[in-house]
Amino acid sequence: MAKITHVSPLAPAAFPDLPVIEGVRFATVAAGVRYSGRTDVMLAALDPGATVAGVFTRSATRAAPVLDCQAKIGRDDDAGAAIIVNSGNANAFTGRRGIESVRAVTSAVAEALDIPEARVFSSSTGVIGEPMKHDRIIAAIDELTGALKRDGIAEAAHAIMTTDTFPKGAATEVLIDGEAVRITGIAKGSGMIEPDMGTMLVYIFTDARADLPVLQSMVSALNAKTFNCITVDSDTSTSDTLLVAATGASGVTITENSVGFMEGLRRVMLDLAHQVVRDGEGATKFVEVSVTGAHSDAEAQVHAKSIANSPLVKTAIAGEDPNWGRIVMAVGKSGARADRDTLSIWFGDILVARDGWVSPDYSEGDAAAYMKRQDLVIHVDLGLGGGTARVWTCDLTHGYIDINADYRS
Amino acid sequence: MAKITHVSPLAPAAFPDLPVIEGVRFATVAAGVRYSGRTDVMLAALDPGATVAGVFTRSATRAAPVLDCQAKIGRDDDAGAAIIVNSGNANAFTGRRGIESVRAVTSAVAEALDIPEARVFSSSTGVIGEPMKHDRIIAAIDELTGALKRDGIAEAAHAIMTTDTFPKGAATEVLIDGEAVRITGIAKGSGMIEPDMGTMLVYIFTDARADLPVLQSMVSALNAKTFNCITVDSDTSTSDTLLVAATGASGVTITENSVGFMEGLRRVMLDLAHQVVRDGEGATKFVEVSVTGAHSDAEAQVHAKSIANSPLVKTAIAGEDPNWGRIVMAVGKSGARADRDTLSIWFGDILVARDGWVSPDYSEGDAAAYMKRQDLVIHVDLGLGGGTARVWTCDLTHGYIDINADYRS
Repeated sequence: MAKITHVSPLAPAAFPDLPVIEGVRFATVAAGVRYSGRTDVMLAALDPGATVAGVFTRSATRAAPVLDCQAKIGRDDDAGAAIIVNSGNANAFTGRRGIESVRAVTSAVAEALDIPEARVFSSSTGVIGEPMKHDRIIAAIDELTGALKRDGIAEAAHAIMTTDTFPKGAATEVLIDGEAVRITGIAKGSGMIEPDMGTMLVYIFTDARADLPVLQSMVSALNAKTFNCITVDSDTSTSDTLLVAATGASGVTITENSVGFMEGLRRVMLDLAHQVVRDGEGATKFVEVSVTGAHSDAEAQVHAKSIANSPLVKTAIAGEDPNWGRIVMAVGKSGARADRDTLSIWFGDILVARDGWVSPDYSEGDAAAYMKRQDLVIHVDLGLGGGTARVWTCDLTHGYIDINADYRS
Repeated sequence: MAKITHVSPLAPAAFPDLPVIEGVRFATVAAGVRYSGRTDVMLAALDPGATVAGVFTRSATRAAPVLDCQAKIGRDDDAGAAIIVNSGNANAFTGRRGIESVRAVTSAVAEALDIPEARVFSSSTGVIGEPMKHDRIIAAIDELTGALKRDGIAEAAHAIMTTDTFPKGAATEVLIDGEAVRITGIAKGSGMIEPDMGTMLVYIFTDARADLPVLQSMVSALNAKTFNCITVDSDTSTSDTLLVAATGASGVTITENSVGFMEGLRRVMLDLAHQVVRDGEGATKFVEVSVTGAHSDAEAQVHAKSIANSPLVKTAIAGEDPNWGRIVMAVGKSGARADRDTLSIWFGDILVARDGWVSPDYSEGDAAAYMKRQDLVIHVDLGLGGGTARVWTCDLTHGYIDINADYRS
């Protein structure tokens, strides 16, 4: 296991003050699934009437808890609900035994909380391919249910960490017809900081009241512009999970027209997504890649991801090198439409290239000075149409190699 | 410019003895395009009657010489022909001026050799986005044409290097109806060893006689199984070029049924492709990724590329870690069809996982010992159909970061 002694240089100054969401309580426990001397299981118990929406990894080799969540999500039910998450073992590529572990845990939680098993969602993050010691989690469930409390979300953010270098939380409050609704969330990943631990897990809670179709469609649409727009190293976990639970405790009902709520939810999701990038393995730079002028938004996204995933672009950023030739290369290889002679590139406000040639006003010295910043914006305009996309990534450094080339045991 | 003082540990023991191909002569010169104290331009002059086939990068931002080659290739002509290549400047992303540079060089070569300009093919490799000092190349053409010789191919292999750590050559001889035909080739790349220098250039010569459609279709088909099956870092150059010239001097004509010739050409192409991987930036391991049991060959190729391009798989190989969970991850994210429960994985002959679970006979110690080898085979069987693919790559090491995060100037 890689020894991580430093918090990411891109970490926020402090964990935010997350407000209580009525209708949900949290507890954590040190069950010893794999780690010792720290909490490794968190339980969130939702009062009856909560709506739970979710999106999951599209990996063809997804983990057993993801398959179980996908089977359960989308059913409306007024019963109470729960989310149980362990760190230390991903319960992924564990065959038939993986599903047995999920059932054992979720049925034990259902029994302890007296709710239907179909309302118990679970996630696991940690090593792949090892049987999960689910008996250790089950043995801790009484302690968990006895410890549930309204203000336990910060402790929950710690319990789900694997080797993240900081816990991740975000919150906002929006007014709907003059009434306050709160949204708060926690996340872990995507450190991949201990080999095999790449899972991104995100749990967001709101006291808004929402019908499932409304909430699910909002979450799916916002996911496409937030978590699906970040990349650390182009590798996709077998376990990525985002759950959003609306407790309804505020008494304020949202609809598909609740623009203010959607904007608040977007802010919380984007904040958590950015925190995941800021904890990217070995990251020393936070980079926004903005693409405009593509034939479509989808093609803009292809170009932006090609730039953000290019090892040559990412190593140039690590070296504080304004190496715009590599951006031209990444646009050229992406597969989406581009025309060399209408292409323009900026680093921040510095125009580097225009119409397929280096700008006459370009100063390499100015660009090199810009690249020394911690937060960078790379902007590419394709000059072809109205398609736009924004993607967030980090640089590729020796730290990434240190973390991931270490032998596991 | 990165200082490379060591030859790749994966380099062949020596440059091979390349036989003379009748009908082609070579010359090199130190024109000072960018480098000093070394040759940086090579000229290959082909006698009348030669057939020239080629394949090129599919980048949307391809360089001016590539666009010019693509416009010229595929025209049959009995006149003499020439290939002129410079290192030091890629003449890429150089707008209208780029094509002017190509025309200036190719027309000067055509005049000096008294051949049509449409039969002069050119390549450039080096920095992107700087105007090329083509006057320096033109000033050296008389010296080049005066120095043409039959046995100059090894010197040509040196002149086209940018910061490759070794020159690359391969040759074979095949018998067609009892008559000997020779095939010999040189390549450079894909070191990307000096930032911006990622071009792969390959020139192959044979004394077989071939009609253009026959030669072109062989080259395109073999390219799909050789050069298109290697990856160092998933980044695609703006200038990749493969030219194959058949001089006809042997008097032996090949047809689409010349299986022996095709096999010989395949061997030379694969040998050169492997040498490019063996000179991959920072490489310490040469890795074959073999995928079987996919729904189709195309889907097998998608899985193989996903494994070979995964930074997490490549760093695990660098760390000599038999981290098969990352291979499961790479299969899962590829987008091609896979079923976790029919998936099997081998390192060499060591069965790691079968039917979606770690093999009961698997020994981590055996696998860890295997990973210490310099040449590795990762084999994945999807258990779904008859599709197969093989891809070659190298590991991702601190050397890659050193080479590519260095500031350019």
